Amino acid sequence: MVYSVQPRVGQMRREEVFDLIREDLDRVDRAFGVDTVCTVGAVTALGHYLQISGGKRVRPALVLLSSRLCGYTGPSAVQLGAVVEIIHTATLVHDDVIDGADLRRGRPSTNSCWGNHMSVLAGDWLYMQSFQMALRERNFEILELLIHLTQMMVEGELLQLEKLGRIDITEEEYLDLIDRKTAGLFAASMRLGASLAGKHDAARDLDEYGRNLGMAFQLVDDLLDFTSSEDTLGKPVASDLREGKVTLPLIFALRQCTSEERRMVAAVLRERAFDSVGIGQIVTILNRYDTPATVLERAADYGRKALQRLERFPDSPHKRALEALPEFVLHREN
Amino acid sequence: MVYSVQPRVGQMRREEVFDLIREDLDRVDRAFGVDTVCTVGAVTALGHYLQISGGKRVRPALVLLSSRLCGYTGPSAVQLGAVVEIIHTATLVHDDVIDGADLRRGRPSTNSCWGNHMSVLAGDWLYMQSFQMALRERNFEILELLIHLTQMMVEGELLQLEKLGRIDITEEEYLDLIDRKTAGLFAASMRLGASLAGKHDAARDLDEYGRNLGMAFQLVDDLLDFTSSEDTLGKPVASDLREGKVTLPLIFALRQCTSEERRMVAAVLRERAFDSVGIGQIVTILNRYDTPATVLERAADYGRKALQRLERFPDSPHKRALEALPEFVLHREN
Repeated sequence: MVYSVQPRVGQMRREEVFDLIREDLDRVDRAFGVDTVCTVGAVTALGHYLQISGGKRVRPALVLLSSRLCGYTGPSAVQLGAVVEIIHTATLVHDDVIDGADLRRGRPSTNSCWGNHMSVLAGDWLYMQSFQMALRERNFEILELLIHLTQMMVEGELLQLEKLGRIDITEEEYLDLIDRKTAGLFAASMRLGASLAGKHDAARDLDEYGRNLGMAFQLVDDLLDFTSSEDTLGKPVASDLREGKVTLPLIFALRQCTSEERRMVAAVLRERAFDSVGIGQIVTILNRYDTPATVLERAADYGRKALQRLERFPDSPHKRALEALPEFVLHREN
Repeated sequence: MVYSVQPRVGQMRREEVFDLIREDLDRVDRAFGVDTVCTVGAVTALGHYLQISGGKRVRPALVLLSSRLCGYTGPSAVQLGAVVEIIHTATLVHDDVIDGADLRRGRPSTNSCWGNHMSVLAGDWLYMQSFQMALRERNFEILELLIHLTQMMVEGELLQLEKLGRIDITEEEYLDLIDRKTAGLFAASMRLGASLAGKHDAARDLDEYGRNLGMAFQLVDDLLDFTSSEDTLGKPVASDLREGKVTLPLIFALRQCTSEERRMVAAVLRERAFDSVGIGQIVTILNRYDTPATVLERAADYGRKALQRLERFPDSPHKRALEALPEFVLHREN
């Protein structure tokens, strides 16, 4: 296992991690279902459609594991697990409108089903609903965290929109984007657990664990977009590039490639399609400069940084579950 | 003055009302400017574009007058005045995307200038920013009020989307829509004043004053859409009907009109344009059944209900300013 972040001996298996929080994750699902019933039927339907479409529930799992790690045993972890999943869902709905995506998780995207206009408003409604739910906690720190985070995510999407189609996006700009768009919500999910337990001294480490895990998660995501299949991804291969987004695998390749290869990437960005240049030709370029391996190594770095942030916590099943997550993220297939 | 809501003797003039809160309204403008600076330049530009486009600042004025009426003299009224204006601005941005509007306040709409995608995200950002600002007050009641309100407004827009193009919308459905889309924010602006002052016993009356004033405001708005000019409105005449929205003047006319006249209205709704039927023909139908007068009388009813809610407050310049507003709303030209 070249890209392993730790020795696998004694590591929790996927089912063991899942068993540890299965009941609470089911409760998160029920809370999501109950709290996304809107007077406008289409919004309820749209929320339900995304809820049952097989999201991985990574973010609620982080809230649950983090709060239990900090010794919190009350019901608010389930509530806030639902809150972060609803925020995540709202951003998916708006992102798909912006990207003009046709598919999400192997099914037609919400904008394909309900149209852009309904999707914009449904996303708005889901944001408001997540804040309503968070308000019930009567905790300013939690509200501050969630509202700040959501604004960061929107800024990430805005910055991405500004950089769309640009072949000259730098590694630094790219890392800032995925920090805002993905890692921020992972970090906030972990921090919420510390907040619930009132463990302010643990907040920084747990936040950084989540942020590094989120960075690893998104690097793998952006790599899979090139290296996986449409069946496994649930959407066409190389969607990012087709939508005008230059991600890290390509940024690394562009640093070393010939001017002819650069011209090919530019053609896809210009045409927003694989017309004059095929997907296979782009993947060949990536492989020529070994960028999949470089990106995976970078993701493993983030995974290791995440693990370091757990060192000071005493051993417990929840700690071991969190220790196992970077490995899962690194080896996931979709 | 047939449609006057009260004897005009002794009523405050427009400039007197404005003078009373001029300095605070200027502070609201500055707070709006300072707090809508985003790391993404386009969002700052978009917010500024709408800020200087001549909005009437009715909602901040309500927060200011209501809080002063209740004896509150602190700086939070200015902050919350900016918050309600930013929420209002965010809804305008998303509404114009939904409606595909080309013009707003006599200038190209934000979606025309920055595109739908940027506008959706800028609207999101403005919502989040308004909540961030409200959070600074460290007052759960205020947050509850604003988040609930915003969700109501989004639901109003969603319900309107569902009813788009329907000739059979009822008066009751229409009133529910404008209650959510307009009157709710007027009511909340007034209630915020009571909250700041801690005058919970006054909250109900001030909320109802705002709600009734908002209903009157929107009825006049929907009437002006037919009876005013493009120059005065800052957008084409009969935009509502062109966008598929049947408002109260038309609802009243449709109750009495001939089947041929009904067919003409249906044609505009179907074509989403004044192609086979002209605007003049529709206005002729409205006038034939005297619906402008009926709608204005209805607006005056709401204005009188608003006034009744002020009766128990002792005389003061701020009370007199609030007493003058229904008359202004009723006689406004844009």
